[in-house]
Amino acid sequence: MSAPEKDVLFPRIALIGAGLIGASLAHVVRRDGLAQHITVNARTQGTLDKVVELGLADATSLDAAEAVTDADLIVLCTPLGAYADIAKTIKPGLKPGAIVTDVGSCKATMFTDVAPQLPDGVHMVPGHPVAGTEHSGPEAGFAELFQDRWCILTPGPDTDSGAVDKVAELWRRGGMNIEIMDAAHHDQVLALTSHLPHLIAYTIVGTATDLEDELKKEVFKYSASGFRDFTRIAASDPVMWRDIFLKNKDAVLDVLGRFTEDLTALQRAIRKGDGSTLEERFTKTRAIRRGVLDAKQD
Amino acid sequence: MSAPEKDVLFPRIALIGAGLIGASLAHVVRRDGLAQHITVNARTQGTLDKVVELGLADATSLDAAEAVTDADLIVLCTPLGAYADIAKTIKPGLKPGAIVTDVGSCKATMFTDVAPQLPDGVHMVPGHPVAGTEHSGPEAGFAELFQDRWCILTPGPDTDSGAVDKVAELWRRGGMNIEIMDAAHHDQVLALTSHLPHLIAYTIVGTATDLEDELKKEVFKYSASGFRDFTRIAASDPVMWRDIFLKNKDAVLDVLGRFTEDLTALQRAIRKGDGSTLEERFTKTRAIRRGVLDAKQD
Repeated sequence: MSAPEKDVLFPRIALIGAGLIGASLAHVVRRDGLAQHITVNARTQGTLDKVVELGLADATSLDAAEAVTDADLIVLCTPLGAYADIAKTIKPGLKPGAIVTDVGSCKATMFTDVAPQLPDGVHMVPGHPVAGTEHSGPEAGFAELFQDRWCILTPGPDTDSGAVDKVAELWRRGGMNIEIMDAAHHDQVLALTSHLPHLIAYTIVGTATDLEDELKKEVFKYSASGFRDFTRIAASDPVMWRDIFLKNKDAVLDVLGRFTEDLTALQRAIRKGDGSTLEERFTKTRAIRRGVLDAKQD
Repeated sequence: MSAPEKDVLFPRIALIGAGLIGASLAHVVRRDGLAQHITVNARTQGTLDKVVELGLADATSLDAAEAVTDADLIVLCTPLGAYADIAKTIKPGLKPGAIVTDVGSCKATMFTDVAPQLPDGVHMVPGHPVAGTEHSGPEAGFAELFQDRWCILTPGPDTDSGAVDKVAELWRRGGMNIEIMDAAHHDQVLALTSHLPHLIAYTIVGTATDLEDELKKEVFKYSASGFRDFTRIAASDPVMWRDIFLKNKDAVLDVLGRFTEDLTALQRAIRKGDGSTLEERFTKTRAIRRGVLDAKQD
């Protein structure tokens, strides 16, 4: 069933990759009739079969170049490490006026790995819908994932503003608020709000994986006391996160350095029995929680 | 209104402290008629007024010695740092056969700070209901807090088994599963499942408190990407947590050492661009998440 013409933002959309974010976006496009035709490309036939079963694609292809043919919007929804190869592969299939965007958590990658491959007349609008769950794969997707969250777009200075507006409108239809910023700034902010928390969660949960079995069972049993919140984060897709840390290396190492300094200070306070430093520090962090609640992000 | 006689576990209960846990326990006792009389002691009249308003006490007192007079069960529900003074204060008021228990997150403290003060004939059953939220104070309490969580009791080797059974039954009525273990073992396990996660969360959220205001606003906005889960943990009561780190210092420093080693290894992998180490590590942690889900602690 076609949607009313007025709602169509892009006649043809190609999704490269169909994990949690790609599938959720497809749900939004379907729900609101934002495209007349969705083609999905993925690395395995199994993923494509699931996408068809979920009713998220009009056509599927294991060949990314074929998938982007005639597409008005191409959305990269793969781990960041695949961008360079995908860009080379789709280059011959891109039509003039097409917009290439993505959903990755490090925005520099679009400029280093994708932009050099794009023909003149093709617009690049890097994007990052800041939303997610710990679940992966097309069956984890749902249209409400983006509701009331922020989508950050990081176009270059010479990017066609009409292309930026169209990508912004797509995410707005998903319920997102739009922010435009510089890619480098995005990568610094996300290193703190997202990449460092994931690295820490992976580490602390990893520390538990090395325990003997009996102790590990106890960790599961008593996880309600704090640990379980970390296990949720540390259940996120391993390849996606591997690539984020490799691609946003400098910003991650920078915030990690600050974190380690702060942790060392608390460690010293514990060792010295310095209760007033601990209490002062723990009191300050409550204000941050209020900030998060005020920003309606919980 | 009195509960049917058969349900009364302790004719008179005295709660020393009425924060989240104390108030939640009082809700359970009220709901199920587990005591004929509850006396609540707290440091401020304001807290006692709230407790009365919530219908959680038959009597209140700012004097802990008065509060424990004639009590069959005394439950310490204060930060760990207050235990030693409380033990000295209540000593003259304790009647023979009374049971002293607590709800603290470090169990060694009962043996070091409380046991030496207890008269012969008074039983000590250290306890830790492993449950909580980030909210504090009597108004944060609710009877369902303990449902399907674990309560760990760490009696000494010579403790009267009847006293242990009665404390166990109290928490069972709150919906908890009971585990008996050695206090030192408890303190090691909780250092990993609870104390380290809180220390890390306090640190990472603390790192954000030092940011300039503009950047801090961005951290709030994009917190859905991982950070917000840490802010919840880092909003926990500062004094309670100060005392936990001071009292469980050795076990915390020990797991912190292991965590720092593991973090350094991941940091090195990022710096060297060693993707396979990252991916392997991130894949292992998913199994831990499944363990937590299988243990029904989420």
